[in-house]
Amino acid sequence: MLWESPVCRVVRVADPNYPGFCRVIWTAHIREMTDLDAGERRSLMDVVFAVEGVIRSLFAPDKINLASFGNVVPHVHWHVIPRWQEDRHFPEPIWGTVQREGRPGAPTVDDATLADALSRALGGSTQ
Amino acid sequence: MLWESPVCRVVRVADPNYPGFCRVIWTAHIREMTDLDAGERRSLMDVVFAVEGVIRSLFAPDKINLASFGNVVPHVHWHVIPRWQEDRHFPEPIWGTVQREGRPGAPTVDDATLADALSRALGGSTQ
Repeated sequence: MLWESPVCRVVRVADPNYPGFCRVIWTAHIREMTDLDAGERRSLMDVVFAVEGVIRSLFAPDKINLASFGNVVPHVHWHVIPRWQEDRHFPEPIWGTVQREGRPGAPTVDDATLADALSRALGGSTQ
Repeated sequence: MLWESPVCRVVRVADPNYPGFCRVIWTAHIREMTDLDAGERRSLMDVVFAVEGVIRSLFAPDKINLASFGNVVPHVHWHVIPRWQEDRHFPEPIWGTVQREGRPGAPTVDDATLADALSRALGGSTQ
């Protein structure tokens, strides 16, 4: 857990190919974004975009990818993924065909640093 | 073109495997969501979620997938994709491994019907 509020939490995804990959998970069991009301959607997207901003500032990726699928687990959550031109799938989405044995030349950022940056961006509780 | 405003437009993606697949494209050349200001982000996401609502009401998919990548064309745009359990890639994202020669049993909805529903949901101009 990197950050949490009463309505959602931010976790880091342990994928060695994608350092900095985070997930924002809505706490209540909701299937689709349009099952939330407008205020709830706004709260959630504010967190998603704050996570994007923090990842950009700490990892300086070539691109940010955002996605909400929920095909396997139909519970609203967002993937926030920093991408590098030399990463494993670029320019494909990370669910696409492997392009190379890529490892991005991303800076090493530990969980505490990431959690602190999220807490500064979003306020509220941290790990 | 299904719908447009001064800041963005909604187009239908011609993919026979994914009827109802729409794309919301920000007009100005912007790379990342966090390069927009908070009001612009909100305006764009309001359109994305309105498109999701219209697609749900017209196509009744099993799930909605939302994604913003821009790895190939780094210009902010959102994919809004209705998914069915028997579609070509389910439960993988549509950029993942083909699962079957699937064709969803989706209703046929022509562009004019989709454009009219968007115009009712969003106001403003249509095709």
